[in-house]
Formats: sequence, structure tokens, C-alpha cells
Amino acid sequence: MPYKEIDDAAIRFFTGVIGNENVLADAENLDRCATDHTEDLHYRPALVLQPQNTAEISAIMQYCHGQHIPVTPRGAGTGLSGGALPVYGGVCLDMRRMNRILSIDTQNFQVITEPGVITEVLQQAVRAKGLFYPPDPASRGSCFIGGNIAENSGGPRAVKYGVVKDYVLNLEIVLPDGTVMWTGANVLKNATGYNLTQLIVGSEGTLCVVTKIVLRLIPAVTQDLLLLIPFRKAHEACAAVNTICLSGLTPSALEFMERDALDCAINYFPASGITVPEDIQAHLLVELDGHHTEQLFREAETISELMQQYDTGEILFAESAEQKQTLWKLRRIVGEAVKGNSIYKEEDTVVPRAFLPELLACVKATGKKYGFRSVCYGHAGDGNLHVNIVKGNMSDGDWKHTLPLGIREIFEKVVQLGGTISGEHGIGFVQKHYMDIAFSEAQLALMKSIKHIFDPKEIMNPGKIFVP
Amino acid sequence: MPYKEIDDAAIRFFTGVIGNENVLADAENLDRCATDHTEDLHYRPALVLQPQNTAEISAIMQYCHGQHIPVTPRGAGTGLSGGALPVYGGVCLDMRRMNRILSIDTQNFQVITEPGVITEVLQQAVRAKGLFYPPDPASRGSCFIGGNIAENSGGPRAVKYGVVKDYVLNLEIVLPDGTVMWTGANVLKNATGYNLTQLIVGSEGTLCVVTKIVLRLIPAVTQDLLLLIPFRKAHEACAAVNTICLSGLTPSALEFMERDALDCAINYFPASGITVPEDIQAHLLVELDGHHTEQLFREAETISELMQQYDTGEILFAESAEQKQTLWKLRRIVGEAVKGNSIYKEEDTVVPRAFLPELLACVKATGKKYGFRSVCYGHAGDGNLHVNIVKGNMSDGDWKHTLPLGIREIFEKVVQLGGTISGEHGIGFVQKHYMDIAFSEAQLALMKSIKHIFDPKEIMNPGKIFVP
Repeated sequence: MPYKEIDDAAIRFFTGVIGNENVLADAENLDRCATDHTEDLHYRPALVLQPQNTAEISAIMQYCHGQHIPVTPRGAGTGLSGGALPVYGGVCLDMRRMNRILSIDTQNFQVITEPGVITEVLQQAVRAKGLFYPPDPASRGSCFIGGNIAENSGGPRAVKYGVVKDYVLNLEIVLPDGTVMWTGANVLKNATGYNLTQLIVGSEGTLCVVTKIVLRLIPAVTQDLLLLIPFRKAHEACAAVNTICLSGLTPSALEFMERDALDCAINYFPASGITVPEDIQAHLLVELDGHHTEQLFREAETISELMQQYDTGEILFAESAEQKQTLWKLRRIVGEAVKGNSIYKEEDTVVPRAFLPELLACVKATGKKYGFRSVCYGHAGDGNLHVNIVKGNMSDGDWKHTLPLGIREIFEKVVQLGGTISGEHGIGFVQKHYMDIAFSEAQLALMKSIKHIFDPKEIMNPGKIFVP
Repeated sequence: MPYKEIDDAAIRFFTGVIGNENVLADAENLDRCATDHTEDLHYRPALVLQPQNTAEISAIMQYCHGQHIPVTPRGAGTGLSGGALPVYGGVCLDMRRMNRILSIDTQNFQVITEPGVITEVLQQAVRAKGLFYPPDPASRGSCFIGGNIAENSGGPRAVKYGVVKDYVLNLEIVLPDGTVMWTGANVLKNATGYNLTQLIVGSEGTLCVVTKIVLRLIPAVTQDLLLLIPFRKAHEACAAVNTICLSGLTPSALEFMERDALDCAINYFPASGITVPEDIQAHLLVELDGHHTEQLFREAETISELMQQYDTGEILFAESAEQKQTLWKLRRIVGEAVKGNSIYKEEDTVVPRAFLPELLACVKATGKKYGFRSVCYGHAGDGNLHVNIVKGNMSDGDWKHTLPLGIREIFEKVVQLGGTISGEHGIGFVQKHYMDIAFSEAQLALMKSIKHIFDPKEIMNPGKIFVP
């Protein structure tokens, strides 16, 4: 059944619910909500709605459900798989006004927040109370916690602290028909019925709208150390990741950057003052955290010793807060820097950690075969390698028709290694055509049946995860 | 539609699939599979099947699906909510022959195992390779890892290391119609489609049969310290739990035992040599673990100092391995010891940790109101309080009709405090009548719809979680 266009009656209804000033149809807002950080895609919604509470969202959903109008929830628009693109038009549900931290429970180490809070704002708010919310996607300075829930985001600290799903205790959600419910309870252990909470985390806005989030927190960590280890051979940097893990140490970050990735970031941020000798092919950025400085220094020493088996350059110990910040900034802006240089596609491969060298070799060989250049970096401690494929001089035809064959080959290798096609960016709009590599028809049918229970009319972020 | 009885044709079919010797209908096996560790319940299956691989289970399921025969998967039968009871008869799928550890990957810190492996056997096998699988239910010496997946088990270490769900990466499952699939990938991060893995964990065998399990592991911890702290006031022991957590320390166990719980265990295991002074009302058992003994002693010192604000007896530091074992044994046998004394019911309440004193007070007040005695203990660091209700001199009528009103009041309080009605034992057969306290009709309807997708003919462990 085709979707219904938004007409005057719909606009009158929405205006009645959230007020004239929160129903937007001007070009600027439609264009803002037509894109996210994924490639160069542009799909305008017919209307942008900015509700401020659960009741308003429930009323909007109920109406759209009745009228068969597609609804695309939108966080900060920093997604990398096109999850927030309103590819069928309709309503963009812009969550920016749902931006209150509702409570920080310092007795039970929990925070209750609305989805439109910027992740870093949340982190700082709980930090000010001695608590720690570890997941920190590269975009943490601008992304919303609701988007992190939608994509089950990770970030550098996942290697020690886990990803978003590991911190979500309970969610208030609005189903496509307007029903409001909580998914679980505010407890650390729960064996009561099916785990609806974890079904929603990572469902990319295709099942429901998340309106409140209960996160568990941990005691704040007070000390950290940062090491930048340069390698003359990229595959040794990959191998060194496992060497560190096998030693029994668990760094709070264990990041891999190809030479090109760091070069790109340095060019983009020349004030960093970081230079890389000609013969260096890759870096590991290793963070250690804890409560005792001496202990961290001992661990750093152990890592230094372990690295002697590899052909490394001089290890940089970032000692000042400023130097740490500079290194982290370089790491965090790689994606942005690559994007600034050229049209690109980002693949978010993930494999069991020890297979990283094999994955990297496959990416490079596949690039050679199909004629594309890639910039690789990512959360190597988790086996999560971001592959930025740069268009460069590739023809539009090759970019459109040949490149997907290469991506397919890489993904097939990833799955063969026990991995999967997205570690933390989600499938969204741009990866759905590869889902058949990760899943059998039976698996996809099961997932689609679950989608159908929540969203029988297919109004909830349509065109995402599954090929229609 | 009524279930089909098992006839000769069915027995011929099963015999053809798994051999005559694995199709059991003798009284001893039927009785063995008629009970688990839940109260004194007894429901005989018509037949016990002992398959040895996925293909056999797939064939059995396909047949039962076609014939409409109920199937109840069974682990070691140590469950505490009646999940393994074949309450509609039919087939008991006894998983004891699926008992191989298939691989331990010391490079990627993963183990692949069949579900019929005893949890402690699995722990020791990975430990021998320098790896650590933390979840350790009290029954770890006999329970199966598959049952732990079914119930999302916890155990004392959950306070630091999380519960079973936090270690499950991927599951091979057989759907009720015989379809075999994996639920995810063998990776630490996954943002590819819906999280089927976490939907299965804790689903108590009502959605599918789990046939292979991929668990993540962590590096083995080498040192630990154990403290037994006696309190003259039980509510202070509860409050002290939060005092320890708020200090920033994260013990690897933080267990609460009422006076009665420890007394019961000591009587059951007199060789322990532990005696408790008259004026002690409760104990905390606190374990600290890590890699550096001096660090653990510093932490123990901190805890001792923190306890000075409470009215405690002399803190016992267990120094020898033997003494530690004795204390842990006492803690682990409490449930068994209480059961040995009287008919009892076990409630598995869980609340945000800081509300434990309030929960304990409610349990005692409710007991007074309805005339029952309770023995309370559990994983206080997670807010998970096991309430063993002892029948003692209560009349059969009161036990059957009045007690449920009291349990209902306790559960209502639990939910009001942000908690839920089972932390780690599951709902199974005996708690399903209380699900309306934890969930709205809309929530229950959603869960039932999910059940219906997996199991449209309701043959998969029927009579569990939901009231039919």
C-alpha cells in the first residue's frame, strides 16, 4: 500500500499536538533533516516535527499509524549508515527538544535521560557526580544518546568497557500505534520475560521510538595514560593488538590507524604538531586507565617490552592532558578528514580480534583487484576495522557498479572469519543490500516477522535494515 | 488444539533418529525428568529423548511440530522456577549427551560449547588455558551451561563481571519447526540486524532449542581475598552494601546472608567449623579479586574502615584456600539447606541496590502480616535478594491460598522500587501468575506475539512464562 501524502488535515493535527512552531516545512529544516553523515545522500522529509515529550510522540505515532504516513526518528544526524534518512519522505521526528537529563541516581549508579541529550553532555553530567558512562563514539561531542541506542554504538573504550547495549537497563518506548511502554526494569539482573530492551537497542528506529533511557553507570576512573606506538609494518600493528590482549592487560582503548588515516587527520588538523616519520606504516593508540598511576606505568612498561618483538618507531607517551587531547582529537577526526578529501564510503567491518591482519590484507588485495583505495582505522581491540573507501579518481560507473562487488568480497571474508558486516554503525539504508551475506533467508525472515509485530503497517523508519 | 499423545509411530520415528537406547520411557528416567530443584513439583513427560547433535534435534523438532507434540528441553534440572518441568507431558529433550566443549580459542578469548556441559567443567577448561568465564550460579558444580543461557543466570560474581547474557556472543538454535540457524556472529561488537542472541538468552526454552553456544572470555584473574563481615543489625548489612559500592570499589562478590540463612547452612554442613555469636543478625561475604595482592589488601583495609560506621562483629579474613572454600560452600548451600529443612518457595527479587534495606523490611513485614517465615540471602551487590519462604507450621490451605497474596505484595513493592520479580531464576512455571505485576497487558501481548513467531503451534516448553 503506498504511503499517504501529508495534507492540510495532517498539518492541522500535528500543530494541535505540538504547536505551530514545532511543525517545520521550511527548506532549511527539510534540508537539514534530509542528510546525516553518511556519504552524500539527500532525502527530504515532507515535514519535520519537534515534539517535547512522550505524550506528544504517542499522539503523532497514533495519527501516522492511522493515516499510513512514514515516520523517521532523527537524533543529531551523525549516523554513518543512513539510519536517519527519510527515504520515503513523510515525517521526520526530530528529537532535539527531548534533551533533558531526568535524574542521576548516585546511590544506584543510574541515569535516566531523554534521547536528545548529547552523549558528551551526559558523560560530563554523570562525571560531575563521580560516575562514568564509558561508551564514547567518535561523534560524542554532537551525537545524541538516543542515536547511540538506535545503532548500538561503541567507540574506543568498548574494548574494556563494552558497547552501548551493555549499559542500557530499561527503555521507555512508543510503538508505531502510539502505545507507550517500558521494556524492562531498572536493575542489573533481570530474568523476567523476554529481553525487549536488547531487542530495541540497535534496532535503528525500525521498531519504535525511544523516549526515555535508563543507563547503568560505574564509578569514575581517575587516572589514564596514552601511548602512540608507530609500526613500520601495518600487519605487525594488527598482530600487536593481540599480543597486548594475550598478555592479560585490558587497555581502555586499543586503536589502529593506518599511515594514511593519521596523515589525513594531521592534514585536517595541522595545529596538532604531530609528525610521522616516512617509514611508519601504521600506529596503535593505546590508553590505559585505572585508579593508581604506578600501576598504569607498570602496565605501559609491559606494553613497551612486548612491542620489542615488532619493528616499531619510538613510542610516544602522552603525559600532559593537552597532548592526550591532541592525540584523541586526531583519532576522532579521521572519518571527517577522509570525508573532507573525497567522496567516500565507510564500511564498519568486525571480526574476532586475532583475524585483523587477515582482514586488513583482504581489504588491500580487494582494493587492488577492483581499483579502489581505502583508509583503514578503528577499534582494533574489538576487531572492529573501519574501512573508508575513497572515490578519488574512480569513475562514477565503477563507483556505482564495480565497487559493490569489492565490498561484497570484503564482507564475505568478514563473515567467513566469524565476523559481521557492521560492528557499531548499523545497517541503516546503505548496507541493507549486503544483509544476505551475514544472514540466511530464515534468519532474515525471522527478523522481518519481529519487525512486523511492532510495525505491521511499515511506517517506522521504512527502507532500513531490510531490502523491501 | 489439544496436544497429540505419543504413539507407536512417534516412538518408531524417534528411535530411527537417535537409536533405541536414547528413547527412554522407564519409570526411573520419567521420574528424573519430572522434577527440577523447584519446590516439590512433579510432572512426568511421556518420553525422554537424549539426542547428541543438532541434526537429531532438528529432526525431532520437525516431527513434534508436525504432530503437535509438546517438547520441554532439559538441562541438569537445577532450575528454581520449574522451567524444565514437562507440565503438558510430551517429550523431554534431555540435553545431557550434548556435552562437548567444541573449541577454546585462546587467541580471541572465546569458547564454543554444547549446552550440556556442566558450568564448572567449562570454567575449569578455560581456566586451564589462562581464561576466565565469570558467571557462577550456586549450582555451578552440576548445572549445565545451556540451562544458564535459558535462565540468564547470574551468581555472586555478577556484581563485578555481569551475568550470562554479558558473555553470550552467538547461539546456534533449532526453531520449533526444525530450522537451524545462528543468532549472531562471534564478535564483541555487532550492529547488524536485530539482536536475536539476547532475545534467546533468558527465554527459558520457550522460543527454540539452543544447540551451540559461543561465549566470550576474559583473561584469568590470579588473586582474591575473602572477607566475612558480621553485623548486629540486618538492615545495616544491607546499607553497608551501598557504602562499599559508593567508595568506588567493585568487589567480585558482595553477598548478603541473614542470620537464619547462615545458621541453616552451618547446620547442614557442620564440618565448616564456623560459629556465629548470638548477637549477629546478618553477614556480608565480600570477595575482592585482581592481579596484585598488595592492591587487594589495600582494598580490604578500605572496606574495614568503611565498616566502622556500623555495629559489626569481628571481620574474618579468609586467608587459606581451604577457608575460602568453606565460606563459599556455606554460601552456596543455603538454598539446599533451607529446602532440606522444610517445604519452601523461593522468590528471586531484585531492586536497585540502594533499596535493599527497604525490600528486606517489606519482606519481613509482609511475613508478619500473612504469617510466614522467610530466610533471606543473595547477591546484594546487584540488589538481588533471594527470599526463601519456609512452610514450617503454615497450614496447607494458607500455603496455597494466603501465601500468594503475600508474595504478590512483596512483588508489588519490588516493582514499585524499580525492580522486577526475577533477577536470575526466571519465571518458568511457578512465577507466571505474577507476570501482571511486572508487565502491562500491552507488554505481555508483545512478548506473546514474539513467542508466536517462533512457536506458532505452542509446542516449545508450553505452560512457561505466560499464563495460557
